Parts: sequence; C-alpha cells; structure tokens
Amino acid sequence: MLSRLPLLARHSRVVLSGIQPTGVPHLGNYLGALSNWVQLQQRAQPDDGLLFMIAGWHALTLPQDPQTLAQSRWDMLATLLAIGLDPKRSVIFFQDHNQDHAELGWLLNCLCPVGKLRRMTTWKSRLATSRNADEDDVDESLLNAGLLTYPALQAADILVYRATHVPVGEDQTQHLELTRDLADSFNRTFKTASDHNPLFPLPTLVGTASRRILSLKDSSSKMSKSAPDPSSRILLTDTPDQISLKIRGAVTDSIKGITYDPVNRPGTANLLTILAACTQEEADVASVARRYESKGHGVLKTDVSEAVIELLRRPRARFTRLKQERGYLIEVAEEGARKAREMSEETLKLVRERVGLC
Amino acid sequence: MLSRLPLLARHSRVVLSGIQPTGVPHLGNYLGALSNWVQLQQRAQPDDGLLFMIAGWHALTLPQDPQTLAQSRWDMLATLLAIGLDPKRSVIFFQDHNQDHAELGWLLNCLCPVGKLRRMTTWKSRLATSRNADEDDVDESLLNAGLLTYPALQAADILVYRATHVPVGEDQTQHLELTRDLADSFNRTFKTASDHNPLFPLPTLVGTASRRILSLKDSSSKMSKSAPDPSSRILLTDTPDQISLKIRGAVTDSIKGITYDPVNRPGTANLLTILAACTQEEADVASVARRYESKGHGVLKTDVSEAVIELLRRPRARFTRLKQERGYLIEVAEEGARKAREMSEETLKLVRERVGLC
Repeated sequence: MLSRLPLLARHSRVVLSGIQPTGVPHLGNYLGALSNWVQLQQRAQPDDGLLFMIAGWHALTLPQDPQTLAQSRWDMLATLLAIGLDPKRSVIFFQDHNQDHAELGWLLNCLCPVGKLRRMTTWKSRLATSRNADEDDVDESLLNAGLLTYPALQAADILVYRATHVPVGEDQTQHLELTRDLADSFNRTFKTASDHNPLFPLPTLVGTASRRILSLKDSSSKMSKSAPDPSSRILLTDTPDQISLKIRGAVTDSIKGITYDPVNRPGTANLLTILAACTQEEADVASVARRYESKGHGVLKTDVSEAVIELLRRPRARFTRLKQERGYLIEVAEEGARKAREMSEETLKLVRERVGLC
Repeated sequence: MLSRLPLLARHSRVVLSGIQPTGVPHLGNYLGALSNWVQLQQRAQPDDGLLFMIAGWHALTLPQDPQTLAQSRWDMLATLLAIGLDPKRSVIFFQDHNQDHAELGWLLNCLCPVGKLRRMTTWKSRLATSRNADEDDVDESLLNAGLLTYPALQAADILVYRATHVPVGEDQTQHLELTRDLADSFNRTFKTASDHNPLFPLPTLVGTASRRILSLKDSSSKMSKSAPDPSSRILLTDTPDQISLKIRGAVTDSIKGITYDPVNRPGTANLLTILAACTQEEADVASVARRYESKGHGVLKTDVSEAVIELLRRPRARFTRLKQERGYLIEVAEEGARKAREMSEETLKLVRERVGLC
C-alpha cells in the first residue's frame, strides 16, 4: 500500500516521533520510547528521513510553570543527544520552531469533525479525571480547547513532513488512526485538475519493543514523572548511589525464589523486565528469570542496579556535559529547525495550492 | 482604562479589522463595513496603526471551491484598494501570509474553555442550521473543529498586533468579548518576574455607523452573497444599467407616498437607508424621507439608482483596472505581509518568553 503513495523526493521512508519537554526523562521513558529512537536511527536505511521533535506546543495543553518549561526544553534536547541521537543523521528539533505545524494544524481542524475529537480516549479520560476531581458537575466546558483539538495538531506534526512511519506507543494508536483519516479526507477533498495524486501518504505505526516499566513503589501504575514519591522512578541523571538505593527500595513480594509472573508478582516481574531490557534479552524474560530461580530478591536487585547503572553511565555523563554547552544546543536546535522547515515548506506550498490559498 | 495599558511603542491606537475573501463584495458589505474602514483611515491620527486583513483561514471553516477561493482573495484585495484603502497608510494583508496568527491561535486555544466556544451564538446557529438541514439527529459531532474554535483564531488575529480598537459589526460583539477574556486570561496567567505589565491591551469595539442593508427581493433578510436570486444584491462591479434594473425591481409596497417605517414598510425603508448612506445623510433618514413624502416609489428608485451609480462609479473603475494588475497586487500583498509580520513578531517574542517557549 505505502509503496504506491507519493513520498518526499529524497526519502523513501520518513519517520517522525515526538516527546513533550517535561523535564529529565526517567527509566520508563528511556526504555519505553527513547531507546527505540536510537535503535531506529542505527537500523535506518541511508535514504530514510528521520525526525525527532520536542513538542512544546502540546505541553501547553496543561498548565506549566514557564521557567520550568523553558529549562525542560533544553534538558530534553540534551537528553536526546546524550542517549545517542545524532544531529548529523536525524533532524532533532523543537516543534515550536516551525510554525508550519500550527498552520497545517488549523487547516486540519477545518476537516476534523468535533465528534471524532470527543471520541478520543485521551479526551474522555481527561473528562473523567475532571469529573472525579470535583464533586460539582464538572463537564467538558471547563477543559480548554487545546486539550480537545491537540490530536489534530499531532496529525499536522506528522503530515507536515509527509511522514510514512510513526514509532509511538500503543496508547497513541487512536491518534494515528485520526491522522490517517485526516490525511485521507484532505486527499479526497483537495485534488487538483493537474495532479490527482494524493498529497499525503497514510502513515503507519512502527512496531517497536513496547516496554511498560512500572513504578518502583506501586506496581499498579506506570513509572511516572508526576508521582509524588521520587523514589518511585529512576531519572536518567541519577547517580549510581541513587540508583542502587531506589532499586533496593523497590516493592517486590515475599514469595521465595524468583519467577516471571506479571499478574501475581508485578514488582518482581518489573525488575526482570528492566534487567532484560538492559541486557537486551527482552525477547526471553522467562529465561532471565530462570537464572535467579534459586536466588533471592537481594541478588536480583544487585544485578538490576548494576545493569541500570551501566546502561545510564554514558548518557548521564554526556547529559551532564551537554547541559553546560548551551551554545552548542542552540546550534543543534537552529540547524534542526532549518532542516525541518525545509521539508515542511515543500508540503505547505502544495497544501496552500490545493486549498486555494495562493 | 485603555490608556493605562501598554501599547506597541510606535502607535497610540492600533485598529484591526478583517473580511473573508468571498468574492466581489455587494452594497451591503460596502455600506455596512468597508466604507467604514475608509472613513477610519481618513479620520485616523498620524500615529494610529491601521491593519486590514483578508481572512482566508476563516473562509476554510466552510467548504470552498479552491479555484474560486484563490480568485476571490485577489478580488478582495483589489476591492479594498478600489474603495480607497491606501497601502502607504494602512497595512493591507492576507491573514494566511502571517503564520504568527496560527501560532498565537493555538496558544489561545490552550487558554480557552470549550464551554465558552460552545456558547458562541455563531456556533449555536450553525448547529441549528445543520439540525434543520437533516431529519436525522445531526449533532455538533458532524461539524468541523474549525467552526468551533475559529473565535480563538479571531482573538489571535486581533491580539497578535495588540490591537486596541476593532471596528466590527454588532454580530461580532460576543467574539470581541471572548477576545477580551482571553487577553485578560493570558495577562493573569503569564506574568514575568521582571515585568508585571499585562502583555495584551483589552481591545474595544469601535462604534461605526452600522447599516443593515436588506435584500432587494426579500425584506426579511440581509443583502447576501449566497441568496439564490442575483437581482437581490448589487455588486460593486455592477454596471450602471445593472444597478438601475435591480433597484427598479426592488420589492417595496403599495402604500401611497414615501415614509420611513422600517417595521411596516421595510422595502421602502431599505431604499431610504441606501440613499441616505450614499448622500451621507444617514443621521437623519427621516428628513430624507420627507423630501419624497408626496412623490412615488418611481422617483425614489430613480434617485437611489443615480446615487448608487455615483457611489460605485470610481470604485468600480478602479477595481476593473486593478484586477488586471496582478503584479501590483502581489507587491501590495507582500509589503502588507512584511509590515504585519514586523508588528506581530514583536508580540510573539514576548508571548513565547512568557509561556516558557524560549
């Protein structure tokens, strides 16, 4: 299917993914998303286009402290470089440095039925949260319009580069489906007499290892930046001592011996998942578990600590250095924005012609 | 109140208004809005900033034929110049040439409760129309998100220039109120430690002569571009013969003599309103009516025709000439966009600093 669609001339595949600038990432972000980006970069074909975006505009759908947000943007850029994304190979950029996203976002809004946005589970869960938060009949009317329409902006993030492949988590499947709908709707609505080719390819999800890393303190929830207890998460900037301490304090169970049983032994399974991801044995967590069958949680935790410390050693050192090099970060950001705009400009020119704004 | 608010350094007042590029305007557009813009330009103080915008992005909230829209944009620019707007004095520009509107539009979306947008009468009437149009339970879910959120983009149109005065029709009062709410909300949410001044002035409505010109064929509705009968409206490009013919065919009543009675004699009153506007006697339409007290509709219609022909003579000639000068129109549009962006860039820089995207 994809091979029949028009692509940017220079690239056979265009891969785009994004992350919000919400501070220093934790181990869950790293193993769940960011490390996949590095793998994608390593395995990409020479003519694949790769774009990684720090999505500042999306962050504004929730209240943010401006000073923290400003710092988080640069920390996130430093992180992406620290884990091994290469600005010479990949376009690494701030969403808010390319207004083409906002323009296409508006145009897609004009093609997007309100009902589709209201059926997004992200919107419905936001609605449910605000209903629980207040005994009064809090309804959607108090939530801001950005929260309702950001999936259309996200569609613009992808389509403005005519991306063909989008490595995102499973929780984003519905948004990607909307993106495909909007692309298809645009293609059908706006054909030119001279060019009946669809303008936008329909992007597909890139299957990546999806690792769900749990809180070290509450195995019923994912590791999260916003959980009140800082020892529930390992940050990419944690020192070896901090990592050891947090792993040692991780909630497990009192069952003897180690088995991989995510339902009945979620805390133990979480440690095994982390270990397997660090040692690249994730395809067979059960066999990792067998190595600890007759050992206790103490031995497992020591090995997990060592593995995580080793995994984060180089990214942490690089991050600490890059954080001081604001001049270099600005250079990378400017170069990324330049390359991103160069790609999106081409799309927007065609978009404007097709809708009649030219 | 306004005098205490910070304004763009070079201007004590900034006036902004806009019109959608929906083809050649008719007499109702001209007397109801466009002629006011020319008066505003004539009466402006030397340091007033004046911006007149052709709002292409707003047009896309409804289905448009791309080729017609592309032509209408240039026709509208030619019209604005033809009626006397001076690109040396006023910034005349295409909204879609300045992406700062789209960026600020997104940011304001993130401050704008969905409920406020759903209470806009423009949205509610759109909703009512779609319900009547189809027996099935057509609900808001079929309308596009642009229709719901365009008042936030409109607020951005105004605030991106920190406009202080907005000459719009009374049907726009609610949208201007939303603009003031969003400006106030931004000012309160985003203060910097160093600068507690509100970033945005709260724009006020400019009282202009508000003339409601009715259809020549159906006195129960306004003169409209979309009415099926073309003889119900006079276009700025109509020839003297076409104008005479349409005025002669205008619906009036069979009561003898002329009186100004908009309730019982709407067709006759409409002709008197048009005549008074042409002869700049609108402050006292009743005294215009008294001149025709003992005369018939025939005499009145002849005089209205002559007045309208005279009113449109120069604009029509200029429009016909300008329509051929695409090179000049492009120059005007580029210069307008350059000036507009120069003003909005200053605002966006401050906005980005305050929200933390810098």
